[in-house]
Amino acid sequence: MSLPPEFALVARHFRGLAGEGALGLSDDAALLSPPAGRELVLAADAMVEGVHYLPDDPPETIGRKLLRVNLSDLAAMGAEPLAYLMTTALPRGTPPAWLEGFAAGLAADQREFGLHVLGGDTVSTPGPACLSLTIIGTVPPGTALRRGGARPGDDLWVSGTIGDGALGLAVLQGRVPADADGHLARRYRLPEPRLGLGRALRGLAHAAMDVSDGLAQDLGHLCRAAGLGAVLELARVPLSPAAAARVAEEPGWLPRLATGGDDYELLFAASSADSARIEAAARAAGTSATRIGQFTEGPPEVRVLGPDEGAMTLPQGGWSHF
Amino acid sequence: MSLPPEFALVARHFRGLAGEGALGLSDDAALLSPPAGRELVLAADAMVEGVHYLPDDPPETIGRKLLRVNLSDLAAMGAEPLAYLMTTALPRGTPPAWLEGFAAGLAADQREFGLHVLGGDTVSTPGPACLSLTIIGTVPPGTALRRGGARPGDDLWVSGTIGDGALGLAVLQGRVPADADGHLARRYRLPEPRLGLGRALRGLAHAAMDVSDGLAQDLGHLCRAAGLGAVLELARVPLSPAAAARVAEEPGWLPRLATGGDDYELLFAASSADSARIEAAARAAGTSATRIGQFTEGPPEVRVLGPDEGAMTLPQGGWSHF
Repeated sequence: MSLPPEFALVARHFRGLAGEGALGLSDDAALLSPPAGRELVLAADAMVEGVHYLPDDPPETIGRKLLRVNLSDLAAMGAEPLAYLMTTALPRGTPPAWLEGFAAGLAADQREFGLHVLGGDTVSTPGPACLSLTIIGTVPPGTALRRGGARPGDDLWVSGTIGDGALGLAVLQGRVPADADGHLARRYRLPEPRLGLGRALRGLAHAAMDVSDGLAQDLGHLCRAAGLGAVLELARVPLSPAAAARVAEEPGWLPRLATGGDDYELLFAASSADSARIEAAARAAGTSATRIGQFTEGPPEVRVLGPDEGAMTLPQGGWSHF
Repeated sequence: MSLPPEFALVARHFRGLAGEGALGLSDDAALLSPPAGRELVLAADAMVEGVHYLPDDPPETIGRKLLRVNLSDLAAMGAEPLAYLMTTALPRGTPPAWLEGFAAGLAADQREFGLHVLGGDTVSTPGPACLSLTIIGTVPPGTALRRGGARPGDDLWVSGTIGDGALGLAVLQGRVPADADGHLARRYRLPEPRLGLGRALRGLAHAAMDVSDGLAQDLGHLCRAAGLGAVLELARVPLSPAAAARVAEEPGWLPRLATGGDDYELLFAASSADSARIEAAARAAGTSATRIGQFTEGPPEVRVLGPDEGAMTLPQGGWSHF
């Protein structure tokens, strides 16, 4: 008695990703004994072909991006990864090579970030592929970073560099010339969850979130959560050499990088007394942290200062699905 | 500063569903302090418009079905519901009334089954709606029901009635005449997770699963997990009055009901010494349990006995997405 095709597919491609408690992905559900003395941190993000990734992106990076956008949510809470569940709705006739690549990407990132799959579901769809992942992490109780909590006068920080993802998408769509070493496209396809920095910010940052829908729009969430305003100084926003070169060529890109999305960097608030500790924590985590503005007394509003230090209006708020 | 449309949509329709630890659905992730002395049980199921439900199904029942197919996985493990995360990929232009109905259905079932939403993601798709839900339940450690564990000579049991879901779909698609009181369509749209029976089977059933892809195919999973064969007596399969009437009219439906899917009943193995306890447990849980066959020494193979008690071959194995 052979397995029906759907289950054979799961067995061939996904069973190797299963860890403790997954019951070989062949039971109705998975079992998880929560680690003693830890609080669980849970998030779920979906990705749709043609919306969150390009149909011809390599399947390896699609799998890794799906995991990494969720890991970025854990990073924003200061949490450590534990396990995940995943559902995939795929067109009938998805080539086995695509599934192999997708699973290989997940396997690589499971090793890199130390987590495993617990369960999920594989179904067919007449539409584009639709991927959903629920991630589970842990923190010591009461230490999770939160979005609310910024205080007037706090510095506004961001990790890494901003705008590479938006430019990478533009490169892949042929809207801007490619950079020589492919940095921009790589950043679009393979975000870098700032897990080490997130952990180090526990007890140090007053508020944190990850930047996924555009720096300016996401800063608005931090402002609303705290009932504060913020000043964002565009000239201080950290750019990669490739992004800086593009802005030098076309200055109109600068405000668009602040609204472009797909950054997956950490945006956070901290007391200016802690600047040195934050810079050291970022270095230790293999990234950088840059002060790009300040929180102010309310109302919750983002004031953007342009490169000439004058107030400016950004071309659009940020990414919205609806 | 108003919310971007995507976040306004989440706030309007989903925030009322959030419970403890969800942080108002406005943080990067949710927090969950696992109940002391319990093991977590986790499952994730996806539903695609036009595959798992009909485009003109009422949005209330779509939301409830999404929750219930996942609750059915908890029932199969003997677990009690705790919380869930959900991602929805919806076409742009989905009417607000659809979202209202969808959320109202979820709210009704949250009350009925005692759980709440912890988090999720709402994105757009150019294809059909694609819904994914990860459910979290709990059991006392070591008591979860498992698929493996049936023993030779064990009775094979099923809860409730089989085939209503498959017939309900046929009714809604105009392939068979409707029953007078709409029982069949209702069962397709609104499965009944057998949570009470599942809990009562802890320590009583040797193996259990929920029937979602067709009775015969799912029985194959129990057989493979135990390395046993099974005899399935079609004449004993419990039918609702509406399904029995359809079979009386068209006897060809009987084998199709055993392969049709969308039953969400519990299929389980137990010692024949426990028959009376099982029947009482089912009654107490508001359903019934019927012996429909027996497990035998291997190899893992399902032998189907037709209404005349002769061996028969079913028309197809069961539902497979691929």
